[in-house]
Amino acid sequence: MTLPALPKIPYGGDYNPEQWGEEVWDEDYRAFDLAHIDLVTVGVFSWSLTQPAEDVYDLSVLERIIDRAHAEGRKVCLATGTAAVPPWLARRHPDVCRTDFEGRRHVYGGRHNACPSSPAYRRLSAAVAGRIAERFGDHPAVVAWHINNEYGGQCYCELCAAEFRVWLRERYGTLDRLNDAWNADFWSHRFTDWEEVVPPNMLSEHWRGPNHTAFQGISLDYLRFNSDNLLRSFRDEKQAIREFSTLPVTTNMMGIYRHLDYHRWAPHLDFASWDNYPTDGSPVSRMALSHAIMRGLKDGQPFWLMEQTPTMTATRDYNPVKRPGVMRLWSWQAVAHGADSVLFFQLRQSRGASEKYHGAVLNHAGRTDTRAFGEVAALGAELERVGDRLLGGRTPARVALLFDWDSWWALEMTDGHSRAVGYEGQLVAYHEALWQAGALVDVVPMTADLSGYDVVVAPLLHVLKGSIASRLEEVARRGGSVVTTVMSGLVDEDDNAFLEDAPGPLRALCGVRVDETDSLPPAVANTVTLGMPGEDPVRALARHVFDLVIPQGATAVGTYEQEFYAGEAAVTRNAFGAGSAWYVGTVLDQAGVDWVVRHALAEHEALGPFADVRDLEHTARVVDGRRYEFVLNHGADEVEVPSPFSGVDLLSGTALTAGDPLRVPAAGVVVIESAGR
Amino acid sequence: MTLPALPKIPYGGDYNPEQWGEEVWDEDYRAFDLAHIDLVTVGVFSWSLTQPAEDVYDLSVLERIIDRAHAEGRKVCLATGTAAVPPWLARRHPDVCRTDFEGRRHVYGGRHNACPSSPAYRRLSAAVAGRIAERFGDHPAVVAWHINNEYGGQCYCELCAAEFRVWLRERYGTLDRLNDAWNADFWSHRFTDWEEVVPPNMLSEHWRGPNHTAFQGISLDYLRFNSDNLLRSFRDEKQAIREFSTLPVTTNMMGIYRHLDYHRWAPHLDFASWDNYPTDGSPVSRMALSHAIMRGLKDGQPFWLMEQTPTMTATRDYNPVKRPGVMRLWSWQAVAHGADSVLFFQLRQSRGASEKYHGAVLNHAGRTDTRAFGEVAALGAELERVGDRLLGGRTPARVALLFDWDSWWALEMTDGHSRAVGYEGQLVAYHEALWQAGALVDVVPMTADLSGYDVVVAPLLHVLKGSIASRLEEVARRGGSVVTTVMSGLVDEDDNAFLEDAPGPLRALCGVRVDETDSLPPAVANTVTLGMPGEDPVRALARHVFDLVIPQGATAVGTYEQEFYAGEAAVTRNAFGAGSAWYVGTVLDQAGVDWVVRHALAEHEALGPFADVRDLEHTARVVDGRRYEFVLNHGADEVEVPSPFSGVDLLSGTALTAGDPLRVPAAGVVVIESAGR
Amino acid sequence: MTLPALPKIPYGGDYNPEQWGEEVWDEDYRAFDLAHIDLVTVGVFSWSLTQPAEDVYDLSVLERIIDRAHAEGRKVCLATGTAAVPPWLARRHPDVCRTDFEGRRHVYGGRHNACPSSPAYRRLSAAVAGRIAERFGDHPAVVAWHINNEYGGQCYCELCAAEFRVWLRERYGTLDRLNDAWNADFWSHRFTDWEEVVPPNMLSEHWRGPNHTAFQGISLDYLRFNSDNLLRSFRDEKQAIREFSTLPVTTNMMGIYRHLDYHRWAPHLDFASWDNYPTDGSPVSRMALSHAIMRGLKDGQPFWLMEQTPTMTATRDYNPVKRPGVMRLWSWQAVAHGADSVLFFQLRQSRGASEKYHGAVLNHAGRTDTRAFGEVAALGAELERVGDRLLGGRTPARVALLFDWDSWWALEMTDGHSRAVGYEGQLVAYHEALWQAGALVDVVPMTADLSGYDVVVAPLLHVLKGSIASRLEEVARRGGSVVTTVMSGLVDEDDNAFLEDAPGPLRALCGVRVDETDSLPPAVANTVTLGMPGEDPVRALARHVFDLVIPQGATAVGTYEQEFYAGEAAVTRNAFGAGSAWYVGTVLDQAGVDWVVRHALAEHEALGPFADVRDLEHTARVVDGRRYEFVLNHGADEVEVPSPFSGVDLLSGTALTAGDPLRVPAAGVVVIESAGR
Repeated sequence: MTLPALPKIPYGGDYNPEQWGEEVWDEDYRAFDLAHIDLVTVGVFSWSLTQPAEDVYDLSVLERIIDRAHAEGRKVCLATGTAAVPPWLARRHPDVCRTDFEGRRHVYGGRHNACPSSPAYRRLSAAVAGRIAERFGDHPAVVAWHINNEYGGQCYCELCAAEFRVWLRERYGTLDRLNDAWNADFWSHRFTDWEEVVPPNMLSEHWRGPNHTAFQGISLDYLRFNSDNLLRSFRDEKQAIREFSTLPVTTNMMGIYRHLDYHRWAPHLDFASWDNYPTDGSPVSRMALSHAIMRGLKDGQPFWLMEQTPTMTATRDYNPVKRPGVMRLWSWQAVAHGADSVLFFQLRQSRGASEKYHGAVLNHAGRTDTRAFGEVAALGAELERVGDRLLGGRTPARVALLFDWDSWWALEMTDGHSRAVGYEGQLVAYHEALWQAGALVDVVPMTADLSGYDVVVAPLLHVLKGSIASRLEEVARRGGSVVTTVMSGLVDEDDNAFLEDAPGPLRALCGVRVDETDSLPPAVANTVTLGMPGEDPVRALARHVFDLVIPQGATAVGTYEQEFYAGEAAVTRNAFGAGSAWYVGTVLDQAGVDWVVRHALAEHEALGPFADVRDLEHTARVVDGRRYEFVLNHGADEVEVPSPFSGVDLLSGTALTAGDPLRVPAAGVVVIESAGR
Repeated sequence: MTLPALPKIPYGGDYNPEQWGEEVWDEDYRAFDLAHIDLVTVGVFSWSLTQPAEDVYDLSVLERIIDRAHAEGRKVCLATGTAAVPPWLARRHPDVCRTDFEGRRHVYGGRHNACPSSPAYRRLSAAVAGRIAERFGDHPAVVAWHINNEYGGQCYCELCAAEFRVWLRERYGTLDRLNDAWNADFWSHRFTDWEEVVPPNMLSEHWRGPNHTAFQGISLDYLRFNSDNLLRSFRDEKQAIREFSTLPVTTNMMGIYRHLDYHRWAPHLDFASWDNYPTDGSPVSRMALSHAIMRGLKDGQPFWLMEQTPTMTATRDYNPVKRPGVMRLWSWQAVAHGADSVLFFQLRQSRGASEKYHGAVLNHAGRTDTRAFGEVAALGAELERVGDRLLGGRTPARVALLFDWDSWWALEMTDGHSRAVGYEGQLVAYHEALWQAGALVDVVPMTADLSGYDVVVAPLLHVLKGSIASRLEEVARRGGSVVTTVMSGLVDEDDNAFLEDAPGPLRALCGVRVDETDSLPPAVANTVTLGMPGEDPVRALARHVFDLVIPQGATAVGTYEQEFYAGEAAVTRNAFGAGSAWYVGTVLDQAGVDWVVRHALAEHEALGPFADVRDLEHTARVVDGRRYEFVLNHGADEVEVPSPFSGVDLLSGTALTAGDPLRVPAAGVVVIESAGR
Repeated sequence: MTLPALPKIPYGGDYNPEQWGEEVWDEDYRAFDLAHIDLVTVGVFSWSLTQPAEDVYDLSVLERIIDRAHAEGRKVCLATGTAAVPPWLARRHPDVCRTDFEGRRHVYGGRHNACPSSPAYRRLSAAVAGRIAERFGDHPAVVAWHINNEYGGQCYCELCAAEFRVWLRERYGTLDRLNDAWNADFWSHRFTDWEEVVPPNMLSEHWRGPNHTAFQGISLDYLRFNSDNLLRSFRDEKQAIREFSTLPVTTNMMGIYRHLDYHRWAPHLDFASWDNYPTDGSPVSRMALSHAIMRGLKDGQPFWLMEQTPTMTATRDYNPVKRPGVMRLWSWQAVAHGADSVLFFQLRQSRGASEKYHGAVLNHAGRTDTRAFGEVAALGAELERVGDRLLGGRTPARVALLFDWDSWWALEMTDGHSRAVGYEGQLVAYHEALWQAGALVDVVPMTADLSGYDVVVAPLLHVLKGSIASRLEEVARRGGSVVTTVMSGLVDEDDNAFLEDAPGPLRALCGVRVDETDSLPPAVANTVTLGMPGEDPVRALARHVFDLVIPQGATAVGTYEQEFYAGEAAVTRNAFGAGSAWYVGTVLDQAGVDWVVRHALAEHEALGPFADVRDLEHTARVVDGRRYEFVLNHGADEVEVPSPFSGVDLLSGTALTAGDPLRVPAAGVVVIESAGR
């Protein structure tokens, strides 16, 4: 299965006409016409309407909504609506309510609130999904299935405890193996019966919070189990749908979301989709990273941008409106990185409850003459003009960035060396370096085929699983470059330490051993002098953790300037096979990371055409041999550069020859159907 | 019913001789003589003494206390003592203990700890109040009833859940109406049975805390219910007292207290009273605001200052002593704003438990030669000299400030635009502007008769209820001025958005519509240039939320200088009828608020005589046609101004003629029985 | 009973070979040989191994470990292993799991997790201790018993509630006495049945946290009870051991640990021992203080340093490695202050769970060529050379610092005057002054014999118990000096205020009375001018609390410069008998504390030889009439001073004559077997 078959990039988004009188629907469609909206996502929170009681289904409202969409010539992404349980369900089956990390059994309220172990929830969520599929599976308007919504969170109830034990038996087989994986002799934890295992939370193994646990192995397994357990819920519904429909199935994910290992989810999705709500202040490149993660779930297959706000969010402490042009810029950025849709949450602003100030295509007054609506309508027209040209496009990346939930979890739950080192922050920093350098990057799991990449970047590769160490060696052996860092190669899949010098199984590749690792409070920095032979050295700041690196074949390319290890190696490069391995034994500031990453890229001429123009993003998609070059100006000022491309800008219709001045205003976008570079 | 009938301002306060041997009582009365103390409040926490077991009442200690007070010529404010339950009651009827916002059932401890839904608490609290009223209702020393103490807090137990459902049925009648009010189709919340409703707390609708809820409507209703439910407890006791006594009844309130809607309580009190414990660092004007709120509860009727500390508090992180003269100054400020009593907590410092370092008239050593005692005694003598002159005085205010608990609650629970905008902060800021300008202000509910005011100030009038929009139009139509702000006119009484441009039903009055509202972190400010034709413009800083105001008849008197809306209107004035409406579309700094408020006041010559003298407070009371002018110097330095008044200073006996130099030292007070201005 | 009989300072530490294959044991002992390690502490968390089920004991692994140690010529400190319960025990007897301060019943997890009231825990922990003692009590390798591990924490379950009531009955006898102690008439708390008492926690008397309580007396008693209740667990095990072994028994304590009153524990220990994990940034003198507290538990008898890390910790947010030389320096500091052992946690780094990055003598790679191992081995050799010379040495202190858990608890739970005044902070500050001045200090309980001291320093002597006031008077009367401070002498043992002026029963000694006490936020300082007749005055900053001190015989030696009490006394000295009493009525900065302390010391020529050399520590031990002078350089630079001592440096073998240059490098240590000064 792949993406829904559509003649152009679908445009529209979440639409909840069930919250409004039908006279409002007329007004909606008049506005959708103005905005070139051709797809609506319906039913996302409809369960209390579609099933008003355990034995009563009522699909009439949903039917009117879908029929109306069809009559208006729109396509429908149809949700199962199971992400918030109806009041009657919580009352009748209290076990659908979750028990939280503090051990508190919840009662009815909120959303994303169902225990995935609850038999009632499993049975009834699948049943309602099946009913909807049965009724609308062959409706001509429906093009895709949207199961649930933004799966996430955790439950710690007795039912989950029981399921956890089942999951552990499957994983470990015997208690001896379990005790070994968890290093259970430590602190008298040898389990003698599966029933003795309880979920790790604030009432058992944890202190201070989710990242502070007495037993990292137990907590790591619970994160894995919880992700799998929510996935099972998704699979319950998908199976119910499959009885009646062969349309592609997705669920809207959340990009860099910690609680679910999307790599384990990916095989079960027909296509990936996600909701892009960047935090104010996060770098633009973080959105590019998120898109690349989504694209990496299905081996480079395009994904859907299922939600973004046209203007502002509501649940944040402060909710700025998107500045003029920004909604269009970020929409095109999604497409540039592999999105085959541009969809909003939502089409009409809610009247009440917690999202009533969340931005929408139509505001409370239903105006079509606001700034926000105007920008939405203009983008709709633009997408209509582009037609089907970009659909299915692939990103021709030469660089891989490794991303691994196990390393994320294990690293951040580890006691020592420093709690200030966050996985996401380093991932973003190394990606930012790649992004500013203009490298085309795939973000891939540790299991990915690395044979096609010139450069593999693996920051904080804490947990080494499977054959990753030898496959990284193979990258270098055949001439590629590998970049890895401090805190890498320290533990196995059980989070038990390798009984050797750091970086463990990566030592041969990196040509170093670490004698000891210092850590210091965030306010304290060490200076690292970075330099290759024949280059002027540069200085960067290092913080948090400081490996005392002893080269064993590698060359020191960065050395500390302070502390008792002044003069010792901090960053090394090792010639390995036909290629190289870079080891960064500390947490460098962005300038330091840039230095390392650009040197590794330079070994393969993998820097992009605008590597020296800050915040001018370039990426590309290839469709049936045609290559589309995307140039997006995220800076505050217009940029003029000599065009590296020849071709025609899809958006303006302007023809360009390589070397011509390419002028991109602030927030501007150019999409060149390339005639070669 | 009105205030207790007394020949002078009563002076004294909380007195707990039951915690001491009777030999100490003798010492107490010798000190009370020195301090001119003539009223004691007794029995405030006496329940475990007056009822040592469910079927045993023992009023003997209370009788000795009251008889002794009478014998010593003192009057008694008699408390029912039900604000802390006795140990036996919690053990015998565990349901008297509250369940907190986290869903935790409490056990015995603390005070202000009873669940108002508990049948045992309701029955026994009323019973003990009745017993006390039966015994002492016609005691010659007793002049007033003090029910419970500082009602507050919340309970979320099953009993409260049941009472909440009853309350909802009464409010909404049908589930359809309930679902509509709560916009229940959002997030699948359509209720099909009243029993499905549970209290909104951390186990149901809330996240992060009390102000973060998935369903604002549910949480808003629970705040209303809880306030009504505690009021019912008060009414239980009042009814029991009324069987035996016709003396006036009050309970000591807490000024600007968020959890209770005192406007809903007011009709059930014979007179208002409150405890003044200003937070260090809060502006002096905030006490004036609190007094005015209390005065506004009973249409301008005087109230009692039931508690204040003579020196220091104890429960704060830091507890400074009141500086020399400050206790007197703030006591007179209370009287100036309508207090008909000056009472302390407490007369003798506690020996143990959490208030043992709380200041008292008599300290642990029982000394009468401390600085604190000296100031208490001097004020006692002063009040004795003033006699009955000020009792019953009314404030001749020409300005109304609207204060509304629903807007407070709804605004602060709203998702978006900015969590940094607090209701109280803006209320205090607009009041501070009025106070520094010397306007005489009533603080009134949205239901108040506005026909007598020249200026009505309504910051953050978020929830529009009843006929308020048309009555504000009427103020302007007849020539008055209305001032309102950003976040006003957005939602109806159910907290559902008005389906029109902001500021909703206030648009015609304000002559504007808001196209969109930006919000930014607190650290970011925009500059607003404020200016009326012919005036030099001034600049103020704006923060948090920024309406893009499109005048529709109004004149822009303030414009933004930064962001993409530079040059757009931020503050407007609209001529409406014979009057005007000012709309402030952002959160201005104090200088900006001052500018707007003073312009509105100036349209009615409503600035006070010391508008240009910072921290020199003026207010007035009128008694039987006589007018008393209060001048209080809250600044650090002596002030000399030409007197705007002719008359005699009640405190010094000095006669003044208008134009004479009026000299007021730091912390000084002048009370002129005015012969006209 | 006293210390284990050993021929030299034992060297080694925690050793957990049960977590490793026996092939690793061989490697261990080869490394121990290199490091001169002669004692291993085994079995600390072995319960799930030694008792795999309620009716199954298996001491075979422990036996192999102990036999191997013996075969290798090592001594064993044998732990009972009861500090972490096995999984089966928690499942079979859920009441062994604690209920926390929030009232939440825990389930299995972590360590230090047993409820001391649980009958199952009491029975089974004693039984396993007895079994181990029975088997190994006469094993030739075993030299000491290590019961449990780092006792601490609190439980609030129903079983503890019942035990608390028993404890209260024993303490108070009658409810009248209880009600009096708790001042129960306050807030209606008069108890009429013992069963009404519940533990004070967040569900009863507390708000905000452990230090905020409605009833200080109840909370104080619960702290006492909890300490006693954990002590009873210790005594259960000790009694079981005593049936089979007469070897000395200890438990490893935690120095300045708030939750246990070690003074109440001390009589039940044969010898004291503790784990030294200083927080980064705490002063070096705080370790000296901790050692002195431990030494003070058994009237000056030496103690064991049971744990310290060779390199880094793991559970902190940041875990720096100990800088070169620091591990040796701090080891010798322990010995200098009375330690008769130098032991580490741990000998081999854990493979998994929360301590896998905690430093160890042998790291994951098992290397013996790391910096850390090298320093361990060198110290081992050094200790071997020193032999038995220092064992049993006593500290010839002339100064006593009073330390009292009741005052610590009561002061920090008190409402008012300032929450910013912490007991530990002031204790450390006064000790730092003594330490920098080079005074030899004993840290003793309020019950200690004070007759041998020239100077007694008692900061924040909040709770006055027993005859302490008269015994302090006696110190001064016979010519000694007493130093005490603000917040002293305020309450009796029940935490009820003395009904007199502050500092209560210390007034006569201090020759002052306090008229009132101001308190201000931490950001606000007052300046105090300090000066003795004929001296140039110096200025210090005062914060938090400010007594307005009225001398009544005393001389003001420090006066405030700001606030309305400018010019009033802040610090006084009173001639009393042949001696003096200093009263510091505020919280002075370190310079101010130094001034007071050095003046008091100077009255007795009790300043040390290096009082003017910052961070050069000196202390001494006396063994059988021989005196050993320890000089430790904690500064960053080498120091050269004229030697005050003649003798031979035990570590270098160098002979010194008084007056010779004594050169101590940074982190250097000199131990002079003194030939007199």
